[in-house]
Amino acid sequence: MAGDQVTLLDFWASPFGMRVRIALAEKGVKYEYSEQDLRNKSALLLQMNPVHKKIPVLVHNGKPVCESLIIVQYIDEVWKDKAPLLPSDPYQRAQSRFWADFVDKKIYDIGRKIWTTKGDDQEAAKKDFIDCLKLLEGELGDKPYFGGETIGYVDIAFVPFYSWFHAYETVGNFNIEAECPKLIAYCKSCLQKESVSKSLQDPQKVYDFIVMLRKNLGVE
Amino acid sequence: MAGDQVTLLDFWASPFGMRVRIALAEKGVKYEYSEQDLRNKSALLLQMNPVHKKIPVLVHNGKPVCESLIIVQYIDEVWKDKAPLLPSDPYQRAQSRFWADFVDKKIYDIGRKIWTTKGDDQEAAKKDFIDCLKLLEGELGDKPYFGGETIGYVDIAFVPFYSWFHAYETVGNFNIEAECPKLIAYCKSCLQKESVSKSLQDPQKVYDFIVMLRKNLGVE
Repeated sequence: MAGDQVTLLDFWASPFGMRVRIALAEKGVKYEYSEQDLRNKSALLLQMNPVHKKIPVLVHNGKPVCESLIIVQYIDEVWKDKAPLLPSDPYQRAQSRFWADFVDKKIYDIGRKIWTTKGDDQEAAKKDFIDCLKLLEGELGDKPYFGGETIGYVDIAFVPFYSWFHAYETVGNFNIEAECPKLIAYCKSCLQKESVSKSLQDPQKVYDFIVMLRKNLGVE
Repeated sequence: MAGDQVTLLDFWASPFGMRVRIALAEKGVKYEYSEQDLRNKSALLLQMNPVHKKIPVLVHNGKPVCESLIIVQYIDEVWKDKAPLLPSDPYQRAQSRFWADFVDKKIYDIGRKIWTTKGDDQEAAKKDFIDCLKLLEGELGDKPYFGGETIGYVDIAFVPFYSWFHAYETVGNFNIEAECPKLIAYCKSCLQKESVSKSLQDPQKVYDFIVMLRKNLGVE
């Protein structure tokens, strides 16, 4: 797709933005990265995502695509000749969509509860979080990636949250690896891929960001 | 796909189940309908959807597919020779997914607020609900269906909620048609299709069901 103009409206710490970065890297798509100020949203962001007003937005030849998992599927369908992200079999595709949707519905929201609550609410969130990770660990099994031998849709949906684990653990005073060692080994193995390592962020930097958000919310 | 065994685990009033019923009807797929008791979940439901334990579940040749929009996409990919539900162009597909996802994230939850709250919370929910419907009405424009000339993914995601509008209106004491006349005309036009009319439910029966749920919740 020579001559394509691709811009990603994103925010450095967003696990949703990281998904799109990994997918573009896997496909070898060159793009302009446009960091957005989420406290003072740009006219461009409001124009490109008037419904949700959120990042990430992929702007492809002037046309916006919103919502991270929809963007990843779009990338897979447009740049289809390299590094397929979804399997070709309809049943396997449905299973991939199921687990990516599971990550979408659970991980961010439960993780957020860990760093926005205290006491019993935080304990309940930590338990929920580990329960979800154990389900994912069971689904992963002994495969190198969720879809099998190559990185795919579910990996791209999930692994960005690994950047946030250190913050969850430090704020919540718990150890994810002690509960889900195979899942953490899998995350570390994903980080061996350049498409992942260059898309994720320094866990310490994410932690500092969370500390700032907690102060702003008055949780600390 | 002669010889296919297709069973739908469903609950009569579920707008999510209705989505799957419409998709199967559009494709002309014969299936066994299995009504589920959601207060006393069957071993079959728990086995087929151990993660969410929810209907609808499509069981195709013994293998389960869960989550209504994922099921509709699965149906479109397996029975691909008749009545395509998603467009073939990647950008149009992404737009269809965006609006179906919008319906998924907004309509049921905001609608539920209308019948589970009172006073200011209910007024806020009614306003949110109308705001969402106006966005959908704008996206529909003057087209007969969201995707153009034939019924498709966004219509299937949205039109089941029309069965619930009477309940929302009666409980919330407001009139959706007065706010969104074009969207209501569109819903009525969808009901002219047999795939829709036989999949949706009597609005009065849904209202009676909501009245019972409100009593159980102690809202009335």
